[in-house]
Amino acid sequence: MLTQKPVTTFLDELASSAPAPGGGSVAALSGALGAALISMVCNLTVGKKKYADVQEDIEALLEKSEALRKELTDLLEEDVKAYTAYSKAAKMPRETDEQKAERTKVMQAALKGATDVPLRIAEAAVKVMDLCMPAAEKGNAWAVSDAGVAVLMAEAALRSAALNVLINLGSLKDKEFVAEKRAKLDSLLKGRGAMRDVIYDLVVEKL
Amino acid sequence: MLTQKPVTTFLDELASSAPAPGGGSVAALSGALGAALISMVCNLTVGKKKYADVQEDIEALLEKSEALRKELTDLLEEDVKAYTAYSKAAKMPRETDEQKAERTKVMQAALKGATDVPLRIAEAAVKVMDLCMPAAEKGNAWAVSDAGVAVLMAEAALRSAALNVLINLGSLKDKEFVAEKRAKLDSLLKGRGAMRDVIYDLVVEKL
Repeated sequence: MLTQKPVTTFLDELASSAPAPGGGSVAALSGALGAALISMVCNLTVGKKKYADVQEDIEALLEKSEALRKELTDLLEEDVKAYTAYSKAAKMPRETDEQKAERTKVMQAALKGATDVPLRIAEAAVKVMDLCMPAAEKGNAWAVSDAGVAVLMAEAALRSAALNVLINLGSLKDKEFVAEKRAKLDSLLKGRGAMRDVIYDLVVEKL
Repeated sequence: MLTQKPVTTFLDELASSAPAPGGGSVAALSGALGAALISMVCNLTVGKKKYADVQEDIEALLEKSEALRKELTDLLEEDVKAYTAYSKAAKMPRETDEQKAERTKVMQAALKGATDVPLRIAEAAVKVMDLCMPAAEKGNAWAVSDAGVAVLMAEAALRSAALNVLINLGSLKDKEFVAEKRAKLDSLLKGRGAMRDVIYDLVVEKL
């Protein structure tokens, strides 16, 4: 499991020419870092007298951020698996027409898997973004910069995942699948750049 | 060393209420991830016949991205150290006037250290951003989305580092130091949001 390896080893494997991990895994990790920062803000707020009024909200936030952190850590591993399946398919024999047809079929199926994983990363990243404004507004003021870093990491995760969806859609032949996934991606991206700026500016004001 | 721990342990410690790691460490890690992705693009281009014309440029890029990856990994550890020093200073006794004065002096010095580290992270992140356009233009076209993810991570690193500089500047009493560092930070941030958009759009066009 890649996420069980030391941070430096993860970076070494990322920097290498090995097919995985790549940008998709970084998207998932970036989202998980954002979720972990929201959890940190919540953990610095839970049980504090000064924040007695918001304890229930903070506990609900923490439950969501921890679930998203787990989901994004799992998606990091799934991205590696999906990419490995595609790499393997690409190496299938293509000498006869039958082999070529079979290879194309397996590759197209693998590409759909390699598209779905970053799309799920994008969905989870959007959910992390939704936790950042309440964390910045209600969480321990002393950790407000961490809520700001969280939104930066979550939005970078979303956009990074988008690039990985788009690169795969470009090679897919199933036009209906492509149209459906592109529409889904567009709806996830909509307004999120502006949302990042709004939360960043709010955090800077509070510093 | 935090970077020697498994990725999941890093995330666990980040999510906890422990003072470090926090947003500053995430800024450094995000920059290191961006640098590693540039190295990956270069490693997928080096020695490839199709890219014979750009071999020298790519090797020069790779040397820079690897140096920045190392620098940002080291800065992650330094951020934890600087924050720990500040935390320790804050716990100094403050019963007598002498103790109060001594504590303030040590805390102000620690805050300067805790400001300089994210400022160095911001500087390194800007240098990673400068490698992204040439990597996207000259590197293996097959890995262009990774150059796109690199610029997203590097810009998120820059902005995250900025939040960590700003939060410390707010508590510093040395007005000259504050003005100098703020000017430095402003010059680092200038035009970088637009640069991210330009490179992202170029990458999307190439997908």
